[in-house]
Amino acid sequence: MSTIPATRDACIALDADDRLAPLRDLFGLPPGIIYLDGNSLGAMPRTASERVARVINDEWGRELIRAWNTAGWFDYPRRLGARIAPLIGADAPDVVVTDTTSINLYKVLSAAMHLVEGRGDASRRQVISERGNFPTDLYIADSLCRERGFELVLLDAERLPDALRGEGGTGAHGTSVAVLMLTHVDYRTGAMHDMAAMSAAARAAGALSIWDLAHSAGAVPLDLRGSGADFAIGCGYKYLNGGPGAPAFVWAHPRHADRLEQPLAGWWGHAAPFAFTPDFSPAPGIGRFLCGTQSMLGMAALECGLDTFAAADALGGIDALREKSLALTDLFIARVIERGRGLGLGVVTPLPHEARGSQVSLTLHADDPDAGFATMQALIARGVIGDFRAGDGAGRPDLLRFGFAPLYNTRVDAWDAVEHLRDILHEGHWRDPVHRRRAAVT
Amino acid sequence: MSTIPATRDACIALDADDRLAPLRDLFGLPPGIIYLDGNSLGAMPRTASERVARVINDEWGRELIRAWNTAGWFDYPRRLGARIAPLIGADAPDVVVTDTTSINLYKVLSAAMHLVEGRGDASRRQVISERGNFPTDLYIADSLCRERGFELVLLDAERLPDALRGEGGTGAHGTSVAVLMLTHVDYRTGAMHDMAAMSAAARAAGALSIWDLAHSAGAVPLDLRGSGADFAIGCGYKYLNGGPGAPAFVWAHPRHADRLEQPLAGWWGHAAPFAFTPDFSPAPGIGRFLCGTQSMLGMAALECGLDTFAAADALGGIDALREKSLALTDLFIARVIERGRGLGLGVVTPLPHEARGSQVSLTLHADDPDAGFATMQALIARGVIGDFRAGDGAGRPDLLRFGFAPLYNTRVDAWDAVEHLRDILHEGHWRDPVHRRRAAVT
Repeated sequence: MSTIPATRDACIALDADDRLAPLRDLFGLPPGIIYLDGNSLGAMPRTASERVARVINDEWGRELIRAWNTAGWFDYPRRLGARIAPLIGADAPDVVVTDTTSINLYKVLSAAMHLVEGRGDASRRQVISERGNFPTDLYIADSLCRERGFELVLLDAERLPDALRGEGGTGAHGTSVAVLMLTHVDYRTGAMHDMAAMSAAARAAGALSIWDLAHSAGAVPLDLRGSGADFAIGCGYKYLNGGPGAPAFVWAHPRHADRLEQPLAGWWGHAAPFAFTPDFSPAPGIGRFLCGTQSMLGMAALECGLDTFAAADALGGIDALREKSLALTDLFIARVIERGRGLGLGVVTPLPHEARGSQVSLTLHADDPDAGFATMQALIARGVIGDFRAGDGAGRPDLLRFGFAPLYNTRVDAWDAVEHLRDILHEGHWRDPVHRRRAAVT
Repeated sequence: MSTIPATRDACIALDADDRLAPLRDLFGLPPGIIYLDGNSLGAMPRTASERVARVINDEWGRELIRAWNTAGWFDYPRRLGARIAPLIGADAPDVVVTDTTSINLYKVLSAAMHLVEGRGDASRRQVISERGNFPTDLYIADSLCRERGFELVLLDAERLPDALRGEGGTGAHGTSVAVLMLTHVDYRTGAMHDMAAMSAAARAAGALSIWDLAHSAGAVPLDLRGSGADFAIGCGYKYLNGGPGAPAFVWAHPRHADRLEQPLAGWWGHAAPFAFTPDFSPAPGIGRFLCGTQSMLGMAALECGLDTFAAADALGGIDALREKSLALTDLFIARVIERGRGLGLGVVTPLPHEARGSQVSLTLHADDPDAGFATMQALIARGVIGDFRAGDGAGRPDLLRFGFAPLYNTRVDAWDAVEHLRDILHEGHWRDPVHRRRAAVT
């Protein structure tokens, strides 16, 4: 546990001493904003605009179609994959950047189904996941299970080990499970699974494991190669700072790679992509998870995001970032407990370091069902940007989410955010009707 | 048939008189380049760099996550869809911009299969297409057919009507065909199908029709609504000038839209995208073809491409563009015939206007198998950018492709391109070994 500063001045002093502090200058953060939503959309690297302009003016504009060769467009998904690899504990040739997280999940889940079917094990027809997994992941899995004659079984996280052992009457049985599909860090609570333990449990049950790293990549050290995982996918625009709608990434363990089939078979995943042969012959390894033509502007912006991690390498890299992330979230949690006393706040994010990612989620008990939403709006009006995730009225509460990005957040950010939160709740500012107005998108 | 200018001076005069001529200034074309590859990658609108920089600096950088509301990111796929609609003869609410052409094909073909299955017609298990269709389209169709228990039947174009009538021993039978899937303008030859006739033949056979408009949208007037087509997809980075890897578009006839199922079910295609409900409930209409988060930089650049068409609206719009396109390709063809005499050139693009799109493809008979490739390299070295598509050694010849984009190409472009081609062939410049070197990507 890091030492938690007891005063704002102590925060200032620690921030000033922080060897990672210079990294904040790599980002163009607006003045007066405390940005705690890097888990939804990472901040903008200062280089992004110029880099993308270069792709537009010098490559597209001047080189035109020749840029496929002269500007290296064709290798971009692999070049960026190689740069994400060390952040997720993968080998450089085993990662490509392409499409969206959802579509990459479809590819790897489909490939996993084919692998299991290829073993001739017809009894394994279940995909198990966590009930609270990110909804889109569940939509994709449900849709693919229905198409392919599999069953999607959703359980609470704590029952997953039993299910893999075929115990506990979960409706899932070790010998029926084809795939365990999980999001490593929960988008609502920030709770983090033990990837190695869960992958091992899946493997012991004869099942494959798929990990969604949307809320992990760039936020916590990962060891895909060592974890026993089979597949992983993740997002470019959250902690990786790749910009709105940045392309996603996909990894498969190299023990599988040349045997994998996925149905989104496009020219970029072909062994000879420019031969235009009538039959599909998949590229070796992870390259077969590429499909259609990707946005080069999106790639260029993501490259700028990855550059911010390269800059962190000399300062301790992802381990140092994790250490700072925990210092920030520890501080935020401690201040919420201290300053939120009597105001109805609760911390739902697990306290043990090994059990959480880089966000803190709070509940708010109040006499008004709009309290959580309005409190977040009041925070945003003051320049403290987190976000609100509605509950389901059936056990899952409304949440105020605060994501901490150690590349650019400071201890003073955490300190001041809690002071604003305290003030809004204590003074009842959130009751102002202006904060209750729902925008089209939240 | 337009009058074909007989001299270069006549071309200059016609270009000067051309009411569409000012549109060329909307593009940042490099000096000294004759760009005839807009069918692969459209030229760069001058506004693109600034527009994208605004998304990066003002929206991503300053608004951060709030830009989903304040900058209208959430509606971007629909806003751009509405702008593509008039170019393809669709209603504005029936088109969305998203993902890639390949992935959108997967969605609509899957939806078509579901529709047919939903009718309870278990005997319709064939998808028929043209043998020479764009390879990626065939990969996607083949892959999906195998997943879903359909059969992909490939025929030469001229046999498709027989197949739909169940005649001619094609292996396909009217009553077995579920889907007719075609690319409207052939990527190799530039030949254009009669969409209304083929869609009607499909419908008469009880089958659905899917059209890939990759080489049509922005190049030829289209009337999806009136054509009897069921689905269409298309590309943002060719004639629409949306930039490298621009997002693609998808259309479904509104008679189907609320009954459609597609397996790439993601948050953006949900009826309540921000409610994060565990079950998928598809958005009404075409919105359900959205899936994961899209590149906002890609959207912004595509918007600039669509602005160039908006500028053409006041000058006669897509009909005027088509008229000019035909004038350019007529001129190019006439000059190839005139100046290419005795040099081994052949025009494979159909001559009737109604049977071709906006490109001209040439064969080259020579004593050297590299002649076609080397000739294109020699043209490119002189600043005349077309492209080369290798044959298959089995009936499909090597091709030199020249795409004409009436927004920015001129009659002088067409004239001079042929003069360069003639010179390269007549003087044997293509034999220079420098032109035979194959780059990584062609």
